[in-house]
Amino acid sequence: MTHQTSPAATASHADMANCIRFLAADAVQAAKSGHPGMPMGMADVATVLFTRVLKFDAANPTWPDRDRFVLSAGHGSMLLYALSYLTGMPGMEIEDLKNFRQLGSKTAGHPEYGHAPGIEVTTGPLGQGIATSVGMALGERMAAARFGADLTDHYTYVIAGDGCLMEGISQEAISLAGHLKLGKLIVLWDDNSISIDGPTSLSTSDDHLARFAASGWDTTRIDGHDPEAIAAAIAAAQATDTPSLIACKTVIGKGAPTKQGTSATHGAPLGDDEIAAARSGLGWTHGPFELPADALKAWRAAGARGAKARADWEGRLAAADPAVRDAMTAALSGDLPEGWDTGLKAHIAALIADKPKIASRVASQKALEVLVPAVPTLVGGSADLTGSNNTKVAGQEPVTPPDYAGSYIYYGVREHGMAAAMNGLALHGEFIPYGGTFLVFADYCRPSIRLAALMGIRVVHVMTHDSIGLGEDGPTHQPVEHLASLRAMPNVLMFRPADAVETAECWALALQNKGGPSILALSRQGLPTLRSPDTEAMPSAKGAYVLAEAGGGARKVTLLATGSEVTIAMDARAALQAEGIPTAVVSMPCWELFAKQDQSYRDRVLGPGTVRVAVEAAGGLGWERWLGEAGTFIGMEGFGASGPAPDLYLHFGITAEAVTAAAKAKL
Amino acid sequence: MTHQTSPAATASHADMANCIRFLAADAVQAAKSGHPGMPMGMADVATVLFTRVLKFDAANPTWPDRDRFVLSAGHGSMLLYALSYLTGMPGMEIEDLKNFRQLGSKTAGHPEYGHAPGIEVTTGPLGQGIATSVGMALGERMAAARFGADLTDHYTYVIAGDGCLMEGISQEAISLAGHLKLGKLIVLWDDNSISIDGPTSLSTSDDHLARFAASGWDTTRIDGHDPEAIAAAIAAAQATDTPSLIACKTVIGKGAPTKQGTSATHGAPLGDDEIAAARSGLGWTHGPFELPADALKAWRAAGARGAKARADWEGRLAAADPAVRDAMTAALSGDLPEGWDTGLKAHIAALIADKPKIASRVASQKALEVLVPAVPTLVGGSADLTGSNNTKVAGQEPVTPPDYAGSYIYYGVREHGMAAAMNGLALHGEFIPYGGTFLVFADYCRPSIRLAALMGIRVVHVMTHDSIGLGEDGPTHQPVEHLASLRAMPNVLMFRPADAVETAECWALALQNKGGPSILALSRQGLPTLRSPDTEAMPSAKGAYVLAEAGGGARKVTLLATGSEVTIAMDARAALQAEGIPTAVVSMPCWELFAKQDQSYRDRVLGPGTVRVAVEAAGGLGWERWLGEAGTFIGMEGFGASGPAPDLYLHFGITAEAVTAAAKAKL
Repeated sequence: MTHQTSPAATASHADMANCIRFLAADAVQAAKSGHPGMPMGMADVATVLFTRVLKFDAANPTWPDRDRFVLSAGHGSMLLYALSYLTGMPGMEIEDLKNFRQLGSKTAGHPEYGHAPGIEVTTGPLGQGIATSVGMALGERMAAARFGADLTDHYTYVIAGDGCLMEGISQEAISLAGHLKLGKLIVLWDDNSISIDGPTSLSTSDDHLARFAASGWDTTRIDGHDPEAIAAAIAAAQATDTPSLIACKTVIGKGAPTKQGTSATHGAPLGDDEIAAARSGLGWTHGPFELPADALKAWRAAGARGAKARADWEGRLAAADPAVRDAMTAALSGDLPEGWDTGLKAHIAALIADKPKIASRVASQKALEVLVPAVPTLVGGSADLTGSNNTKVAGQEPVTPPDYAGSYIYYGVREHGMAAAMNGLALHGEFIPYGGTFLVFADYCRPSIRLAALMGIRVVHVMTHDSIGLGEDGPTHQPVEHLASLRAMPNVLMFRPADAVETAECWALALQNKGGPSILALSRQGLPTLRSPDTEAMPSAKGAYVLAEAGGGARKVTLLATGSEVTIAMDARAALQAEGIPTAVVSMPCWELFAKQDQSYRDRVLGPGTVRVAVEAAGGLGWERWLGEAGTFIGMEGFGASGPAPDLYLHFGITAEAVTAAAKAKL
Repeated sequence: MTHQTSPAATASHADMANCIRFLAADAVQAAKSGHPGMPMGMADVATVLFTRVLKFDAANPTWPDRDRFVLSAGHGSMLLYALSYLTGMPGMEIEDLKNFRQLGSKTAGHPEYGHAPGIEVTTGPLGQGIATSVGMALGERMAAARFGADLTDHYTYVIAGDGCLMEGISQEAISLAGHLKLGKLIVLWDDNSISIDGPTSLSTSDDHLARFAASGWDTTRIDGHDPEAIAAAIAAAQATDTPSLIACKTVIGKGAPTKQGTSATHGAPLGDDEIAAARSGLGWTHGPFELPADALKAWRAAGARGAKARADWEGRLAAADPAVRDAMTAALSGDLPEGWDTGLKAHIAALIADKPKIASRVASQKALEVLVPAVPTLVGGSADLTGSNNTKVAGQEPVTPPDYAGSYIYYGVREHGMAAAMNGLALHGEFIPYGGTFLVFADYCRPSIRLAALMGIRVVHVMTHDSIGLGEDGPTHQPVEHLASLRAMPNVLMFRPADAVETAECWALALQNKGGPSILALSRQGLPTLRSPDTEAMPSAKGAYVLAEAGGGARKVTLLATGSEVTIAMDARAALQAEGIPTAVVSMPCWELFAKQDQSYRDRVLGPGTVRVAVEAAGGLGWERWLGEAGTFIGMEGFGASGPAPDLYLHFGITAEAVTAAAKAKL
C-alpha cells in the first residue's frame, strides 16, 4: 500500500493539479489544436496518482519494476507530457511542451511510444490502451512467477475515457483481465459523461460498474476532484485481489468557466479569452508555460519519490540468485539466447532430408517444438483455436491464475484483445508473445497489429487457414484480401512459407525481427517439402529466392509464388520443362524482406525479360510490383466458396495447368 | 404473444427436435466436415421457436413483416438448413442437405445470404450475427415509426454462442441495443459452457446475464432442453420492452452418447459409430436423411402456420393509405426515387461555377444536404464523430427511443457495432444506411464491411481524415495503408474524390451501388474545386478520367492522383507545362470502376508510352497496376507523423516539386 502524503507537499494539491490544467490548456492553444478537456478534468486524479501513489523514479523512467501508467485516452496526451515535465523525466523540457503537436517534437498529438519518457504505449485509437494494459499486468504476474516477487511487484494504472469503454475491445480486455485475476490492474475511468457528439446519454445507457463487476472486477465511484477520495479509492483497489475499476466522476475541462462540462472542451483549443477567464477563476497568476516555483518543486520531489525504491530493487537484483538474475536480465534484453537456433538448424536439415508432406500450420508446430524449449521467453496462445492453429507444444503449461508460471494463454474468442495483450506482454519487457487465429480474422485484430507496427515491437501472429485451401468453411473463413491488406501495413513482416523448411526459417526470422510484428500465414492443407539440399542456407531471409532454376538452357519463364501455391508453380515448371521451356520457380515467403535486397539480387531472382507468371490463392493487388506490366497473375478475383479444397482450386482456376497455359500464352 | 402449441402437433417435440439432430449429424458425416454440436444442442430451442413462436410463412420466406431469425453462431449452419427443409421453404430439398458443404450447393459451410431461403444474414465470423441483428431490430422500429405498426411489427430472434458473446463486437451491439431500447430483440444464448479449446472456464469467467443487464436488457436462464421452459421464457421476453437475453443451458452435441458435452462435437463429424449409438440411445429407427412421416408432417404444418398472418398483412397493406403503401413499397424496392438526382445535378453545376475551396468532408455534407431530402430512405449516423465526419444535415432528427421516427443515429464510439448495425438496417430492407468515422478506424469495422461486401448489400461508409492531411493528430490517426487494404477487398467501391464536384458524384455512385458497400475517403483539409465546365458529365462514373489533358502538343507525361493529391498533380502539371512539357492529369476517384472500363478507355486515360507519375498520400501498394514498371510513385513509405498538414506534406516529400522532378527524371 503506497497511499501516503507527498514527502515534499509544500504546494497545495490544487496548485499542483492546476499546473497540469494550464500546461494543457496553454499547449493546446499554442498548437492551435489538441484536446484540453481530458487533462483538465483528470488533473486531480493524475496529481494524486503521480504524487502519492505511483511507484516510479522520474530520473529512470524505464526501471523494470516501475508501476506502469497507461493513458488509454491518448487524446489527452498533454496530461502525460505535463506529468513527464513536472516530475522531471529526462529530456522533457518546457520547450517540448511549447512545441506540442509540431513536426519532430517529442510531444506528438497522441503519445507515441519511444518519442518521450513516460510513454509506456502508443495510444489514441480508443480502447487500445486498456487492452494493452491487460498484457502488461499479465506480464507483471508472469515475470513475478518466473523471477520472484521481490524483483517484479508493481501495479498497472490506466486512465480510460468513455470512448475506451464503449469500444468492443474494452470488453475483451475486461473479461480477460477478470478471468486472469489481474489484481494489480487498476483502471481510473474519466467518468465525465461527455463524448464528442455531446452527452454520453446520446448514445449509451450502460452501467459500467455493473459490467466490470460481471467480469470479476471490484468497482467504486468517487468524486474525481476530491484528492482524499481518489487516494482512498486507489488504496482500496490495491488491497483487492481482483482488477479494479474506479469511476472518477469528473467535469471535463474543469476550470474553463463557460466551457467546462461540455464537449466544446474535448478536441479544440479553449481560446485565449476562456483561458484567461480560467486563470482568473482559479486565481492562477502565472503566464503561459509559467509555473509557481513551489508547485514545480513539489512536483519534482514527487518525481524523485521512487528513487529509493528503485535503488532497493537494484540491490535486490544484485543480491539475487545469479541464475535468476541472469535469466531476468536476459529476458529483459530482448536478445535471443546463445544457441537458440542450433536445434532449429538441425530440424531444418532433417526436414530437407525427410521431405514430409504436412500443412505449414503443422510445420509451425514442429518448429515451435524446437523453439519453445530454446527460447524461454516465448509465450504462446490462441484465440480459442489452439488445435487448429497448432500453437501449443509439449511442455507448455497454460497460465492458470493464481499460478502464472505457465507459458501458454487461452485467450478465448477474443482476437482483438489477444493482439493487444500480446503488445502489452512485449512492452512489459520479458516476453516474446505469439498468438494464433485464422488469417481471415486478422481483420478483427488489425488495430492492435497496427499499433505494434507503429511502436516497432516484437509480436508474432500465427495465422492459419490462409486461403481457399481451408475448404468447406467457405468464404467467411477464406482470406482473399488479407495478404495484400497486411502487406500494405508499414513495418510488418508478412510471411507465407511454402513448406516445412520455409516455415521453420520464417519462424527464425520472425523471432529475429525485434523491430515490429511478424505474421505467419499458414496452410490448413498438407504441402510437400520442396526444398532441395543444394539451396543456399536460409534463403527465406532474402524474402524471395530461386527455389528451382531453369534447366536445359537460359531461363525463359519465371514462376513466382508463395505458400501453398509454390507447389503448383513447381508442378507447372515440370510441365513446361517437359516441353523444353526452361522455367524457374521463385518462392517469395516475405515480400518486405525481398524489397530490401539490392537491385542485382532482385533482378537475378525475378528474371527481367523472362515471361513472368505469379500464382497465389488470393487477390492480385500488389503483384504487379513483381510481375511488371507484361506478367500474368493467377489467383482470386473475388470471394471464395464452400467446398473441398481441391474442388475450389479447380473451380477458381488456380492450377498448374492454368499457370502453364498463362506462361505459354506469353512466350 | 405467440406462445402456442403447434397446430398440427401430432408428432412429439422430441421427435421433431431429433429430426434436426440427425439431419445435422448425418449431413456433417456425409460432408466429412462441419459442426454437429451446436445444432444438436440447440435443437430443442429451435424446435420451440420455429413450431410455436416464430412468425413466418415458409412458402414466402421474404415476406417483409416476418420475424427475423439470425443464426449468429453460423458454424451451426445445419440447424438453419434443417429448419429450412423441415418447414418446407421453397428450393430446399433433402438433396441439398446431402450436398452440405459441397461446391455449388445451397448449403455452404456457413450460412451465405442469398444462397438459400431463410438465411437473413451471412454469419460465421463470430459476433457478427448478434451485431447485425441490432440493425435489423432497429430497422423494424424505424419502419414501424414511418409506415405504421400495422405493417411492421415483428421480433428479431438470435441464436448466439459463447464465442459470439466473447467477441468485443457483442458488447457494442448489446450496449447499442439496450440504449435504443430494442424491446423486440430476443437473444437465445446457446449456453453450453464449451468452446473449441475446451470448457469455457479455460478462458472466461464472465457473468453474461449481469453484463446484459448492465446494458438494460432483461435476462433469464433456462434449461435449453425443456420445451415448456423455452416457450415460457420467450413469451416472457416478448412481454418486456427491453431487449432480452435467454441463457439456454444446453449440452453441446446432445444425443451423442460419448461425445456430448465436449468440444469434440463442435467442429468435426461425430463418426459413424457415435451416430449409430446416438440413434440407438434416442430410439431413432430412421436411416440417414430419413425422417418419420408424422414428424415431417408436423414440421411442414409449423412452416405453414404463418400463412394467415402473411395474408392478413397483405390485406392490411392493400387497405393502407396509398401514400403510406407506396412509400413503404418504394422503400422496400431499394430503388432510388424518381428524380432523386435532380437536385444533385444542379448542385454539381453550381459547384463547377462557384469553385469553392472546401474539405471533401464538407463537400460530402453539402451533397447530403441535397440528397437526404431527395432520398428519404437514407439513414445517417456516426461513431461519435458527427461534427468531424460532417454526416448530419439540417432536418435529420436523431433516433431517440421510444421515438424511432428520426433518420440519424448516434452510434457512439462503436465503429464495429455501427458497421454491423448498418448491415442490419440494409438487410431489413427499407433503408440505405450511411455512417461516419475516421478512415484509420476502417480497421475497427473491417469484419463487418467484409460481410457487406460478401453479401452484396448497399451501405455507405463516410470515412474522413483520410491521410496525413489531417495533421496534428499524428500517425495513430493518419491512414497510410487503408486505401490499399480496402481496395484489396472484393466487391467494395473505394471512392477518394478530389474536390467538391467529385464528392457529389461519388455520393451519387455510392447510392446507385446496390450490390455492395461503398466507402468515401474524404479530406479534413480544404481542397480547391478542380473540375472545369467542359469535362464530360459524371466522369467519376468511369472511375478515372482525364481531368486536364496535355496542352501544346502530344502528351508526354501523365500524372495520376486521387483525392487531395489531385491538386498537387495539377500544380505539377502547371510547372511542367510551363517548361513546355505536355502533361495530363488523371483523377482516379474509384479504381474499381476504372478497372471495369474497356482497354481502349483505360489506355486513353493512362497514356501508355507516356511518362507516368502517381501521387497519393498513402502507401504505394497496388499503384504499379496503373503505373507500369517504368512509372514513379510519390507517396508514403511508412507511418505518418504529428504536425501541421503542410509541414507533413513537405516532410514526406509529397509535393508538386517532387512530382515534377520525378516526371522530368524519366523524360
